[in-house]
Amino acid sequence: MDYNQLSLEMHRKLKGKLGLHVKSPVNSREDLSWAYTPGVAAPCLEIAKDPEKVWEYTSRGNWVAVVSDGSAVLGLGDIGPAAGLPVMEGKAILFKEFAGVDAFPIILNTQNVDEIVETVKRISLSFGGINLEDIAAPRCFEIEDRLKAELDIPIWHDDQHGTAIVVLAALLNAAKLTGRKLEDLKMVISGAGAAGVAVAKILLSQGVKNVVAADSKGIISKSRTDLNESKQRLLELTNPNNVSGSLADAFVGADAFVGVSVAGVVNQDMVRSMAKDPIIIAMANPTPEIMPEEAKAAGAAVIATGRSDYPNQVNNVLAFPGMFRGALDARAKKITEAMKLAAAHALADYVKSVTPENIIPDPLDKNVAAVVAEAVKKVV
Amino acid sequence: MDYNQLSLEMHRKLKGKLGLHVKSPVNSREDLSWAYTPGVAAPCLEIAKDPEKVWEYTSRGNWVAVVSDGSAVLGLGDIGPAAGLPVMEGKAILFKEFAGVDAFPIILNTQNVDEIVETVKRISLSFGGINLEDIAAPRCFEIEDRLKAELDIPIWHDDQHGTAIVVLAALLNAAKLTGRKLEDLKMVISGAGAAGVAVAKILLSQGVKNVVAADSKGIISKSRTDLNESKQRLLELTNPNNVSGSLADAFVGADAFVGVSVAGVVNQDMVRSMAKDPIIIAMANPTPEIMPEEAKAAGAAVIATGRSDYPNQVNNVLAFPGMFRGALDARAKKITEAMKLAAAHALADYVKSVTPENIIPDPLDKNVAAVVAEAVKKVV
Repeated sequence: MDYNQLSLEMHRKLKGKLGLHVKSPVNSREDLSWAYTPGVAAPCLEIAKDPEKVWEYTSRGNWVAVVSDGSAVLGLGDIGPAAGLPVMEGKAILFKEFAGVDAFPIILNTQNVDEIVETVKRISLSFGGINLEDIAAPRCFEIEDRLKAELDIPIWHDDQHGTAIVVLAALLNAAKLTGRKLEDLKMVISGAGAAGVAVAKILLSQGVKNVVAADSKGIISKSRTDLNESKQRLLELTNPNNVSGSLADAFVGADAFVGVSVAGVVNQDMVRSMAKDPIIIAMANPTPEIMPEEAKAAGAAVIATGRSDYPNQVNNVLAFPGMFRGALDARAKKITEAMKLAAAHALADYVKSVTPENIIPDPLDKNVAAVVAEAVKKVV
Repeated sequence: MDYNQLSLEMHRKLKGKLGLHVKSPVNSREDLSWAYTPGVAAPCLEIAKDPEKVWEYTSRGNWVAVVSDGSAVLGLGDIGPAAGLPVMEGKAILFKEFAGVDAFPIILNTQNVDEIVETVKRISLSFGGINLEDIAAPRCFEIEDRLKAELDIPIWHDDQHGTAIVVLAALLNAAKLTGRKLEDLKMVISGAGAAGVAVAKILLSQGVKNVVAADSKGIISKSRTDLNESKQRLLELTNPNNVSGSLADAFVGADAFVGVSVAGVVNQDMVRSMAKDPIIIAMANPTPEIMPEEAKAAGAAVIATGRSDYPNQVNNVLAFPGMFRGALDARAKKITEAMKLAAAHALADYVKSVTPENIIPDPLDKNVAAVVAEAVKKVV
């Protein structure tokens, strides 16, 4: 199946993927009178008296903005906000289809941090939560931090936290399967952008002690003189033995690999240099860091990718719909570390018979979001 | 029927009025593959190559932002953006129900002109058009002017132009009915805010020569020393004989009255002082400047109000859905004077048997928007 051709045809036929759903039709004077004038003045005045009533009388509490500046769209890079719109529409339909969350794409005509923060703040009263999407590192970190500090609705950068949660869930089951404790894992991460940093942080928060991260220039170590601020902060948290060198050097003796980088940077010799029964989670999109067949032939015990045509698809859709469903239902003012960990453990636990080809739920299983939402709500 | 109570109940039951409509469900790997990864990369890359393709591959071209700062909501005044949200949701459902236009409420956490203009510009790539709503005069004029100058999508302040179009349509038929030519009308307008200014301008553009406007302090005349900039500009266009005094003074000998002000400012003596067979369009909401029964008893030949419980309801819903339907379908880059006049004349012509109780189409007639859209498209 040529998905590119099908995608072009479907997008053209439908004229994009999103429309407005009117919850109650307007056919009579009575409909017009309660939904618009004169009756609508009543909920307006209630909200004017008590701002909290906005959650009761309007749709705000179920709408999430999918906000992007188009600077890091899929694996396509900085293609700009307009070209990223089909992805944001796709994200919106996943919110709705998997968790009943109404989502609207806000694509921003600026890539300036101050302007993005300012704009999202000014339109935030229309939304119950903000999903930042496909915004390049390192500015995605500052944007998220500032919005979290200044707004009292859930703020979430999916490229970071969605990825981190699903990777953690996969690792929990892969570690169990290969007889390891999570905290004893010697981990290698390829990719030190938004996703790589978030994966490192969630693993550290779960007690993993030895995480080594690498970017396209090699291991993030003290011997590097070219690290930006976010990579310097990452170094403070990782690489406890201060190893340096190439990605291949990091692989020697490692228990598990997480790839959030580009196709083909891992070869079979690197897998063979790992500890016995290594775990490979290779998520470069659409072609992983190493193909599953190669990793398996080189001795990998558990293999996951981002692809739907192999087992163990690590897909953010397992996390973000349920996370927002839970956060919105609980009217959470922020998304906390506890909520993220609850989501990851709920995902891992959802897999009843864990096998090397079944460490993570099926991304198309529409029951998953409700399970994640329940787990998240318990810790709000 | 207590519409206030019904409105509170319905808003609470439905949790607001708006949701997302997903044009095609996501149930299979194939659905996911064209709507999201990997297939979605194809339309993204097409748009990156040719920005015009965004109209073909995304929903942008059918989405209108209903933008408000909450500074002049209905007759309620400056109740703030959050309290205005039920009105903006109401506007959005009218767009959808009457013309199939998808609309989304953007309520702004600022009432500063520069910030509003800047914010709308930054989010404008998500929308095919911008409907400014319930923004107080005089800043509504500057906001609209600047956005029109800086964006290449239709910008429309409905409180001005929607009102002006429907008033013009009503006057065209009322003048015909009372044997007058539009250009000979001696007009009085009560209210010199957004709607009053727009009504005056559209009448002048149709050849009306004698328009006298009044605000709460009396006639806008050269003897006034308290006029803000927008009222000074209005004075340059109106009051050719430089009359001054109270609203009652303006009524003497007038052919037609348009009220976009507050309840009760017109009495029977004022109507009796008008020319023979006067036309009264009293749109203060919910209680008109003079009640229809009183106006009739004082000799008014044709009476219209904003109310649904009297004949001749002058309601913006007759104009804005069709205007945007036409503008979006034609991919107009702006809404011109010609488009507004085409809409007004289409509305007037739509009334087949004009009588004193039937000068304007029924606001619930869902065929009207298509007729307006066709008329508008012809002059894009």
